[in-house]
Amino acid sequence: MTKAFKVFDKTIREIQDIIVSVSIMGWDQRVNMPVKGAADRARQIGTISRLIHEKQTSQEMGQLLEDVEKEMESHDPDSYEAALIKKVRKQFDKKTKVPASLVADIAKSTSEANQQWIKARSESDFSIFEPILTKIIGLSKEYASCFAPYDHVYDVLLDDFEPGFKTIEVKRIFDELRKEQVELVQKISESPQVRDDFLYRTYDMQKQLEFGKHVIEKFGYDWSRGRQDEAPHPFQTTFGINDARITTRVDENFLNTAMFGTFHEAGHAIYELGVPKKLSGTPLGNGASNAFHESQSRLWENIVGRSYDFWVAFYPKLTDLFPEQLSDVDLDTFYKGINKVSPSLIRVEADEATYNLHIMLRMELEILLFEETLEVCDLPEIWNEKMREYLGVVPQGDDNGVLQDIHWSLGAFGYFPTYALGNVVSAQIWDMANNENPGLPDQIGKGEFDSLRAWLEDTLYTHGAKYEPVDLIKRVTGEAINTKPFINYLNEKFGRIYGL
Amino acid sequence: MTKAFKVFDKTIREIQDIIVSVSIMGWDQRVNMPVKGAADRARQIGTISRLIHEKQTSQEMGQLLEDVEKEMESHDPDSYEAALIKKVRKQFDKKTKVPASLVADIAKSTSEANQQWIKARSESDFSIFEPILTKIIGLSKEYASCFAPYDHVYDVLLDDFEPGFKTIEVKRIFDELRKEQVELVQKISESPQVRDDFLYRTYDMQKQLEFGKHVIEKFGYDWSRGRQDEAPHPFQTTFGINDARITTRVDENFLNTAMFGTFHEAGHAIYELGVPKKLSGTPLGNGASNAFHESQSRLWENIVGRSYDFWVAFYPKLTDLFPEQLSDVDLDTFYKGINKVSPSLIRVEADEATYNLHIMLRMELEILLFEETLEVCDLPEIWNEKMREYLGVVPQGDDNGVLQDIHWSLGAFGYFPTYALGNVVSAQIWDMANNENPGLPDQIGKGEFDSLRAWLEDTLYTHGAKYEPVDLIKRVTGEAINTKPFINYLNEKFGRIYGL
Repeated sequence: MTKAFKVFDKTIREIQDIIVSVSIMGWDQRVNMPVKGAADRARQIGTISRLIHEKQTSQEMGQLLEDVEKEMESHDPDSYEAALIKKVRKQFDKKTKVPASLVADIAKSTSEANQQWIKARSESDFSIFEPILTKIIGLSKEYASCFAPYDHVYDVLLDDFEPGFKTIEVKRIFDELRKEQVELVQKISESPQVRDDFLYRTYDMQKQLEFGKHVIEKFGYDWSRGRQDEAPHPFQTTFGINDARITTRVDENFLNTAMFGTFHEAGHAIYELGVPKKLSGTPLGNGASNAFHESQSRLWENIVGRSYDFWVAFYPKLTDLFPEQLSDVDLDTFYKGINKVSPSLIRVEADEATYNLHIMLRMELEILLFEETLEVCDLPEIWNEKMREYLGVVPQGDDNGVLQDIHWSLGAFGYFPTYALGNVVSAQIWDMANNENPGLPDQIGKGEFDSLRAWLEDTLYTHGAKYEPVDLIKRVTGEAINTKPFINYLNEKFGRIYGL
Repeated sequence: MTKAFKVFDKTIREIQDIIVSVSIMGWDQRVNMPVKGAADRARQIGTISRLIHEKQTSQEMGQLLEDVEKEMESHDPDSYEAALIKKVRKQFDKKTKVPASLVADIAKSTSEANQQWIKARSESDFSIFEPILTKIIGLSKEYASCFAPYDHVYDVLLDDFEPGFKTIEVKRIFDELRKEQVELVQKISESPQVRDDFLYRTYDMQKQLEFGKHVIEKFGYDWSRGRQDEAPHPFQTTFGINDARITTRVDENFLNTAMFGTFHEAGHAIYELGVPKKLSGTPLGNGASNAFHESQSRLWENIVGRSYDFWVAFYPKLTDLFPEQLSDVDLDTFYKGINKVSPSLIRVEADEATYNLHIMLRMELEILLFEETLEVCDLPEIWNEKMREYLGVVPQGDDNGVLQDIHWSLGAFGYFPTYALGNVVSAQIWDMANNENPGLPDQIGKGEFDSLRAWLEDTLYTHGAKYEPVDLIKRVTGEAINTKPFINYLNEKFGRIYGL
């Protein structure tokens, strides 16, 4: 390490420590904070976010970057040093385009918006959320305008969550998916239906949590390096290489919520905990992007957790915990039930075949909002129209419709597409893992996940966030993002379940 | 507000927000953090503490202070503005006198010392702790020397915890207390003893917590502005005017631990929540000092929570929760049991009559160490000698003796006296409250605390940390710190219980 790089590295790591303090405050805000603490917390997060922004965009940082870039040629392009310099340079260039006051406004408003969203959702009244949402969208437009000119205003937002991805590319991928998924859903709807009534019986909430904990421990989630709490909108968050936490929601009358939610968030955490120690404490020390993160959460939740093999291993444990509730449900019935395809109102409860349709709806609305062809006040109406069009169902209230997701309250426009991209990537990675480890399904059938996790660690997690998604997918799978593995996965799985 | 003051005020409030982020990280560290997260968290807290120190001692801060001091005469001496300027000036002068390298050395050594102390205590072996303790005392002397000349080296240390208090004054107060308390304890030991065996029966831990919550809710602790968690070493912490949290430890086989611990921490929190909103988010927006804080925790824990009137109101609830455990215990027996005087080894478990003797012992040893008339290696021996002299008991091992408290490992010399001063102040304030509200005991007998709390808010909490303790005690009670009310309180209470 040169002297210049040492100073640069130390500075970046100090900033990362401050970023973590905001993550801790955010976790506390969503998990523990007493309701009346909201205003102070919003201000505190605003203050520290502003401080981080100042440090990330300071003249000193610009100088440090120039110093280390002078020596760029001395670093292997795949080295930690080269990746860190590239990452910080991109961030610096992006952030120096945005005024500190706007960053603080966004932080403060979104913190307030989160409280308003909770209130609006609990009262199922979009009008409570509308004013602050309008404000946030305004601030996001202001943010995007800092990056003009662009091919599409939405490219700017997308780049924050999926660096390097373009709106036009995501639209193309979604067009491929939409055609295939709508067709599959149509065929399924014309087939004999499977039963899932038993999932809605009364399940003791503590036992639900116990089952989830049991499973993710087998996945390899380490309680000495993480914890699980309850939160109304589950999420995963990372405070260090040995502290990656998850949250879960439990529904006494729907078994899937806590169960698959826990597998999902554990998937995120396992990714974070698998990043090399050397990268931790820097902007390279996390998952590569939202889509890659989602590829891991969906892999553990769906490809593993909703597979027949998995339930061969774990159904006995579940029936031990809930002997009465599942007394009339054999393994085959259970497997089909948890995979029942049924167009529904709530994204997070959507099955694998319809899930991406929820995403497409949201992305289309976001694009309309940012293209300024849709007013915020018209959101509930157009939401309901598109739900009818894509899924054939219409929510009775805003709580089950336009207010169901937290994302907009956080100002996270451009985030939703990464969920669908994550599904696509998860199938690509799963195919690759299977090609290289043909014994995986058998191991899963025995409740063993060590070689899957080790393969993911060696192949994907080891890169942390060193590469942009478009590059990383090629390094991991040898090809660009490709919808075929996911489409094949859906068609095969549901073809078998529904006898298509 | 002048322009200069506005900038000053804004800067101070921003620093305060960053200080709160460290508090939140510290709370999480002690309440939630997975074990392996410790190293990262220590580094993160170190980074942000360093940042705070930089901001508090920067040239910019010096300039801001000079700017507002130019206008000092335009402010009422009792105004928020004058108090804030004075407070920050004192802090700035103190912090800028200490070299950054010494601050770093102290931080590093105390961090190491804390680990050594934990090891030494678990092995009950002072020699493990001795080398690093010697080092810390050396660093603390170096710290004190930054403030030479002084009347007494210990004055410097005391000032960090009880601003403005002098060693000579604390010694005088302790001499008065020692004489009276030793005499009282002697008389009690010669009287017929009361029973407290029932406190050590098996008490369901959830019900213990439930009782504590019930009581502090009646005290006025507002769950929408705070929360309670479990922690091995209970503490109170404040994240804002609407977020003052407490922690509690529960012992299944000792009723006092959670019960009085909860009342105690709630007392701290009620003080913090009673500070005026205008002061919050600044260094004036907390309790005035350690002794004043302790006066409030001890008031609610002891003067209220261990009073006969209190138990007239709450014993029925307690026996409802624990009908079997308390079946042979009437109100009178219970009241005497929780007030049993019994010289013991452990400070945190000491009764009201002996508690201050534990404190005196510690302060005397600290003063000897800093006067350089005591070697660190001789601490265990002199500890045990003084225990025999003051309390008539001698620990078998260092774990129950000289190693029992965390304070020295944190370098917190000068902290202990504030506990005893808090007891003294609590009685002065209680006398005043009673003089002005003769109905208080009757109200407490009905489980009503609103007028006590309102009086404390109007009389004490309203000042936040605007005044130094020596000034504040006069504003609240009209007189200087005075041991008589506390001595009278002890003599009356225990005179009645033990029929002296």
